[in-house]
Amino acid sequence: MSYRLIEIAEYLEAELVSASSVPGLDDIPISGIADPESAMFDQISFVSSTKYISAAQNSKAAALIVSADLVDSFQIPLLVVKNPYLAYAQLSAKFAEPRPVAEVHPSSFVAETAQIGEGVYIGANAVVQDNVVIADNAVISACSVIGARARIGSGTMLYPNVSIYHDVVIGKDCVIHSGAVIGSDGFGFAPTKNGYVKIHQLGSVIVGDDVEIGSNTSIDRGALGDTRIHSGAKIDNLVHVAHNCEIGSHTAIAGQVGMAGSTKIGQRCSFGGQVGIAGHLEIGDDVHALGQSRITKSINKPGIYASGTGTTEAKTWRKNAARFNQLDELYRRINELEKLLEKKK
Amino acid sequence: MSYRLIEIAEYLEAELVSASSVPGLDDIPISGIADPESAMFDQISFVSSTKYISAAQNSKAAALIVSADLVDSFQIPLLVVKNPYLAYAQLSAKFAEPRPVAEVHPSSFVAETAQIGEGVYIGANAVVQDNVVIADNAVISACSVIGARARIGSGTMLYPNVSIYHDVVIGKDCVIHSGAVIGSDGFGFAPTKNGYVKIHQLGSVIVGDDVEIGSNTSIDRGALGDTRIHSGAKIDNLVHVAHNCEIGSHTAIAGQVGMAGSTKIGQRCSFGGQVGIAGHLEIGDDVHALGQSRITKSINKPGIYASGTGTTEAKTWRKNAARFNQLDELYRRINELEKLLEKKK
Amino acid sequence: MSYRLIEIAEYLEAELVSASSVPGLDDIPISGIADPESAMFDQISFVSSTKYISAAQNSKAAALIVSADLVDSFQIPLLVVKNPYLAYAQLSAKFAEPRPVAEVHPSSFVAETAQIGEGVYIGANAVVQDNVVIADNAVISACSVIGARARIGSGTMLYPNVSIYHDVVIGKDCVIHSGAVIGSDGFGFAPTKNGYVKIHQLGSVIVGDDVEIGSNTSIDRGALGDTRIHSGAKIDNLVHVAHNCEIGSHTAIAGQVGMAGSTKIGQRCSFGGQVGIAGHLEIGDDVHALGQSRITKSINKPGIYASGTGTTEAKTWRKNAARFNQLDELYRRINELEKLLEKKK
Repeated sequence: MSYRLIEIAEYLEAELVSASSVPGLDDIPISGIADPESAMFDQISFVSSTKYISAAQNSKAAALIVSADLVDSFQIPLLVVKNPYLAYAQLSAKFAEPRPVAEVHPSSFVAETAQIGEGVYIGANAVVQDNVVIADNAVISACSVIGARARIGSGTMLYPNVSIYHDVVIGKDCVIHSGAVIGSDGFGFAPTKNGYVKIHQLGSVIVGDDVEIGSNTSIDRGALGDTRIHSGAKIDNLVHVAHNCEIGSHTAIAGQVGMAGSTKIGQRCSFGGQVGIAGHLEIGDDVHALGQSRITKSINKPGIYASGTGTTEAKTWRKNAARFNQLDELYRRINELEKLLEKKK
Repeated sequence: MSYRLIEIAEYLEAELVSASSVPGLDDIPISGIADPESAMFDQISFVSSTKYISAAQNSKAAALIVSADLVDSFQIPLLVVKNPYLAYAQLSAKFAEPRPVAEVHPSSFVAETAQIGEGVYIGANAVVQDNVVIADNAVISACSVIGARARIGSGTMLYPNVSIYHDVVIGKDCVIHSGAVIGSDGFGFAPTKNGYVKIHQLGSVIVGDDVEIGSNTSIDRGALGDTRIHSGAKIDNLVHVAHNCEIGSHTAIAGQVGMAGSTKIGQRCSFGGQVGIAGHLEIGDDVHALGQSRITKSINKPGIYASGTGTTEAKTWRKNAARFNQLDELYRRINELEKLLEKKK
Repeated sequence: MSYRLIEIAEYLEAELVSASSVPGLDDIPISGIADPESAMFDQISFVSSTKYISAAQNSKAAALIVSADLVDSFQIPLLVVKNPYLAYAQLSAKFAEPRPVAEVHPSSFVAETAQIGEGVYIGANAVVQDNVVIADNAVISACSVIGARARIGSGTMLYPNVSIYHDVVIGKDCVIHSGAVIGSDGFGFAPTKNGYVKIHQLGSVIVGDDVEIGSNTSIDRGALGDTRIHSGAKIDNLVHVAHNCEIGSHTAIAGQVGMAGSTKIGQRCSFGGQVGIAGHLEIGDDVHALGQSRITKSINKPGIYASGTGTTEAKTWRKNAARFNQLDELYRRINELEKLLEKKK
């Protein structure tokens, strides 16, 4: 893949400028994107913050994508845009691995009752069960399995070895990475004297449009009613979403986050890696939690939240961690000291 | 699926009563279960605690499953049972997705030396290797792979894309969700000056009866001797069980719990999400740990355990977290103050 | 598998000695390895530390692998080596499950443009896409999928249901367990008022030689440039490695560790289970972190690090955890008390 620089400028609706005269400026071939330090003469780069200016000034890139205020900082060809980071994201699509060409691979199994749209790719050894509906231009990669009556929206891409359980609904233009499991049973059991009795999980999972789901992420179906992932939500790898959870639009969930059952998360939230969220909570819109936070109460106020302790050398940590278990005692002793001093006054 | 109300009463051994006269009471068609708030006229619901009474009083459900003490609280038809939550669990089985009809799918590969019982389902593109034994009525779903000499008990159900390694033994009536891996190598290496030398993991995994294993959970085989999951244990998604661990009967392990090697857990324990348990520990019976607990010592006393800190706004948290690293210093300063005041008395 | 004791001695370059006269010593058949307590008469065991001597003295094992200083402690046949634990690791290879015999299974799909070396095994329903290169003696097990142009080094073994994305490079003699995903997209999005715009991940993953990757581990491809796992690194199950991370040679990463993007980890490090490492950090060589550590700053000093609190009964814990959120207040009150006492002196 290679584009002329002017083609890229047009695609990004960018102004192409150059401090020095460059012969054939429009025609410079661009065959990739790289960060300023490692970019080669046939690659384009970008400067998304003033703190990267000096690194970019030495770049060997063919051109840089910059905002208007940075134009005077560089001698090499520039594509001037409002938001260089967004322009980078948009441009990345031009260099992405092309989607596979439509076909139903002869080694796949597609049930006769399944409805397959136009332009669909079904890869080698993939399996599509009864009454599944796969909309136009969807990609079901090799060894992925779509359970009975599930629906896959148009343009949605499943990488290899994805498991979609029966009756799950996936919207349009989603990306679901390998090993993801959508619709497995929620963890529900009624305790008895003789052990647990399984509560069959009768709900499903409804995923909106433009949702990305990372590799080896598990999203359980609802016990009664559905688990819901709203449009534009982005979920990273190895995330656990329990039954009947709800994740709001444009909320981003980093790797290894876990949510217990029936918790609702609002819109535009973000959760750092390994955050744990207890069940039956309500997290409002615009709530952000730092990595490893331990959320056991509902949060209705937008803001940034955190828990845990910082890492120190184990020797120091051991001493302090031991004192943690005396905190309440320390608190009382300080109270006592204050009373004593009060008396003495 | 639809049942007459009286059929459900009989199945649950419930008494069917109604405060008001309902014509054709026995014949009311029930086509699903829902919670009281969202139940429709053809669904049944249940009240498992007095705190849900008022919500249930407005329910549009065809009937409610309740305990005897709540009979006077409702006007609509009731199924009276001892334990409504258990009745719900039992009834859920009547509305569950039916198991697939017995077949060995032509696209699957089943080794000639494998023994396949009566009524077994082997799905599309599934793989069953040499000398595997699959007992009656087991379900091996699409793209699941059963390694050489593994044994799958009768009635056990594997969802798609499960990996069972060689020689693993799974008991009867287990449920294993997609992406689960049972029998991968334990993490064992002998360190040398030039790096690690692999310790081949010569044991296996033995899973009892009526065990549920969640999606994308990994259970490693033993180094020497076996990893053991006892009958009735329930394991959620994305759980890591290291080599030579043992999980007791009727113990429930929530999502993303991790257990390091050779740890033994007793019966009827429960572990909240993301709990981490160090290696070579003994956890007795009836031990419960809240989510994200960090268990580094054996626990032989039944009870509820926890660790970690609560979540606050990051600004507040940062200040307190900084002080955590001064806890031992604070402790000493309090000691000092107490001594000083003692002197002054 | 069974070996004569003398064969094992020769393989380990061990001295075979016996305190008591044993007829046919060289020919004792050894059909397995076990720990001293459970070893049977046809198994060999080992003593890697003086603390295991007494347990081993009662062993029914046919022979023990010991170091020279322990020879006088035992009456049964001994194989004397420098490092018994290493000898155990080396010997474990003799009893390991044999690798599958070379074949390309007829139910697999191998693209015509793929290059398959000598002695390669491609299992049932495995998929090898266009222009993949699989070097000699590699094993691609059932239902594993290798994306376009990926390269698998000689002797590398993939267990079933592994997903390797396009262009990923895996070195020689690696072991990759079931459910592992290598090369899924890094979690990169440009925020806009209307939601996130995907940053296509244009880099790849480069894995060195002799790397082990556990089951259900996810390693994301780089955004620009590659994610790198250096030779000899060992990664356990359910680990999350984000885009553009780098893991140094002979570093060991335990189960459920998560690394955010662009973090570089040095050589010979170790991370306990569930450690979380923030993005864009530099962790030097020989850094070790205990389980569940929360690493948010770069560490350039070798040593052992930790964070978090110890587990106590929940009742006690609740009191102390509440005080954690008053730590800064407590600190100030202690300051105040000290000032007051200072004044009084």
